[in-house]
Amino acid sequence: MDPLSSPLLTDLYQLTMLQAYFEREMTDTAVFELFVRKLPPGRDFLVAAGLEQALDFVTELRFGDEELDWIERSGLFRREFAARLGQLRFTGDIHAMPEGTVFYPDEPLLRVTAPLPEAQLLETRVLNLVHFQTVIASKAARLRRAAPGKGLIDFGLRRAHGGEAGLLAARAAYLAGFDGTATALAAPLFGIPVFGTMAHSFVQAHDSEAEAFAHFAAAFPNNAVLLIDTYDTVEGARRAVGVSGKLKGVRLDSGDLDALSRQVRKILDDAGRTDAIIFASGNLDEARVAALVAAGAPIDSFGIGTGLTTSADAPYLDAVYKLEEYAGQPRRKRSTGKATWPGRKQVYREYEDDGRFRRDLVSVDGEAHAGEPLLRLAMQQGRRLPQPDLASSRAHCLAQLRCAPEGPYPVEISAALRALAAQVDRVT
Amino acid sequence: MDPLSSPLLTDLYQLTMLQAYFEREMTDTAVFELFVRKLPPGRDFLVAAGLEQALDFVTELRFGDEELDWIERSGLFRREFAARLGQLRFTGDIHAMPEGTVFYPDEPLLRVTAPLPEAQLLETRVLNLVHFQTVIASKAARLRRAAPGKGLIDFGLRRAHGGEAGLLAARAAYLAGFDGTATALAAPLFGIPVFGTMAHSFVQAHDSEAEAFAHFAAAFPNNAVLLIDTYDTVEGARRAVGVSGKLKGVRLDSGDLDALSRQVRKILDDAGRTDAIIFASGNLDEARVAALVAAGAPIDSFGIGTGLTTSADAPYLDAVYKLEEYAGQPRRKRSTGKATWPGRKQVYREYEDDGRFRRDLVSVDGEAHAGEPLLRLAMQQGRRLPQPDLASSRAHCLAQLRCAPEGPYPVEISAALRALAAQVDRVT
Repeated sequence: MDPLSSPLLTDLYQLTMLQAYFEREMTDTAVFELFVRKLPPGRDFLVAAGLEQALDFVTELRFGDEELDWIERSGLFRREFAARLGQLRFTGDIHAMPEGTVFYPDEPLLRVTAPLPEAQLLETRVLNLVHFQTVIASKAARLRRAAPGKGLIDFGLRRAHGGEAGLLAARAAYLAGFDGTATALAAPLFGIPVFGTMAHSFVQAHDSEAEAFAHFAAAFPNNAVLLIDTYDTVEGARRAVGVSGKLKGVRLDSGDLDALSRQVRKILDDAGRTDAIIFASGNLDEARVAALVAAGAPIDSFGIGTGLTTSADAPYLDAVYKLEEYAGQPRRKRSTGKATWPGRKQVYREYEDDGRFRRDLVSVDGEAHAGEPLLRLAMQQGRRLPQPDLASSRAHCLAQLRCAPEGPYPVEISAALRALAAQVDRVT
Repeated sequence: MDPLSSPLLTDLYQLTMLQAYFEREMTDTAVFELFVRKLPPGRDFLVAAGLEQALDFVTELRFGDEELDWIERSGLFRREFAARLGQLRFTGDIHAMPEGTVFYPDEPLLRVTAPLPEAQLLETRVLNLVHFQTVIASKAARLRRAAPGKGLIDFGLRRAHGGEAGLLAARAAYLAGFDGTATALAAPLFGIPVFGTMAHSFVQAHDSEAEAFAHFAAAFPNNAVLLIDTYDTVEGARRAVGVSGKLKGVRLDSGDLDALSRQVRKILDDAGRTDAIIFASGNLDEARVAALVAAGAPIDSFGIGTGLTTSADAPYLDAVYKLEEYAGQPRRKRSTGKATWPGRKQVYREYEDDGRFRRDLVSVDGEAHAGEPLLRLAMQQGRRLPQPDLASSRAHCLAQLRCAPEGPYPVEISAALRALAAQVDRVT
């Protein structure tokens, strides 16, 4: 069994609830919506991502022999449950915002309409996939806006939270406008451009820095980016310009990147290496990148590692997947601080003449409103509809980033939705 | 190809460096060490975890046809490189601290001794696996110490960073003293106890809370834990005690958990449900748990979600994998703020008479010192040595947590190691 596509990669309570639902044939149509309750500190908006992996999971959802064997052996369930699970497939609809769409709190970015057990079972893994990529795309979008015209490369696999996180972070960052990743597997898996230079260990494994540089430049005659900070950055730059043949660029990974990049640029230019680029990395985030850009530091490309792939300043979103309707009845949770808007919803976005977002409206699905409806059908009766490829989603996201205002943004709740909530409260 | 065990799940520069190493037959023995440069805010110590998954990765390391095909097609490498990669296996030694060991900055927790290309290639994925589980085990240890005698369950799969993160977080938390997880797959995969109750959607899908509770209690006659905060927690508690048959417990997921747990305990006791437990969840971390415990809130078990599985207050460590020796010569990086101690090292720990840690000493490997050497041989000439099972590692970790002092802890650098660093600086 592949752990990452196993239906047991879920919370146990999904399975206990399913057993109870099956026992009473509670299989009427349920509507669940995935949304974020509030923005984390330091975010003006979020970027929807992860739909493709969520659709993969839903499409392949089935309990295989190994899973059913565990269900039977676990002692947690009744005998007849495994047989019922063995037949389970997802037969419902999914509406979603296209990947790369900018969205705001209280706006559903994904809606599942399916028989209750099927829709319930999606919760954990769909949230897991969509939440994480949305975290990363939202972080990457901030870096993209902080460094217009500069190269941005994901360097963060080693400190991502596991292997899937590293891969999906590379994807989500590219979706949100990064130029590529250092993660090799992202090339064959997602078609993302990959970049790589050298590590300090390469320099250290040679008897001298000059020997290491000469060796690497000879091995990659058109492509060598030399890491120059292992011992002394300025000395390293002087040694780098001495290699024979083309020097694609140098990388700085420590110290005062503003001052060092200016010194290094001068050394490169004085040696006639005017087309050699300067690459900077080392604990960067959007604030440091913006400061370097504002200061005019002559850095061409930034490698962003841990700060990107863990979204270190905001490593999670208050993302939830909530039942909004069952058997034709709108439902609503009223827990303190966690109340939800009931029923099937749609999000309409109105635009200024120049394309910038004017305001969003969260409405009851089916209400007629001005603006563009953001939720679109992505899966119908268990069959996925064609989705944009990653390059198209990236172009869509970059266009969105040009149109999303900075600062607070108006998201309104329609009068009909408010009336529906009041009505649900009266009857529950 | 399984992405998580693919050798392409690495930084591209590992591959470019390998090509350069192979071209000049730079295949002498290299020694790399994995260590953490400094503690993140809010941590007095760290807990080593992830060795088992790292050894799995190293043991299975090989380039299959799909990977070699990409190497050839990518246009990034020379023709002969793929053939060489196809033969690559890990043939070296790995020394490591046993999982569950408490450790401190500057102490290697893992040391790789192997031909340079093999040792270099391990960097990204070994760091990825060991860093993440160490992050989570270190966080879970704080929760364990904050709630002596209380149940602690991992609830965090949905907001973990991908599926592998969710699974490995369940494992690392259990290793550090959690009692179990909600992630079903952790049971068949790791043998970890799994726990599950119900979601708000279960309550909402029924026409009334009382009906939902009666249904669930009938479906799980000895095991029902009822979630009572969907509409009103105190009303929910009154409804819960009304179910027929055994009530295992109730769960609170919002509001003032201290006040509510007292009200709910009284309702349970007054109804003769004295053995029903109270389970609490909802944005908990070690500070909130410690406050609830200190206040005497009658909560039996805590479910910890996002705060655990993203280690939200410290989502990464400054963990690195550095070349310390090549071809018999100690090596050292001197980059600003990132200098390393050279050579193969060992960590000795001295204890007080009651077993508490007195001080650690980082020394050159082979120096004789008082205290217990913490790095042990885990893989020899490419063959892994038997490791403790997860239950044994958990017992080891719990013993460590009883002996690790709070606050600053003395980690000393041996005189021989200081002398070696000075000597390396003179020759580089």
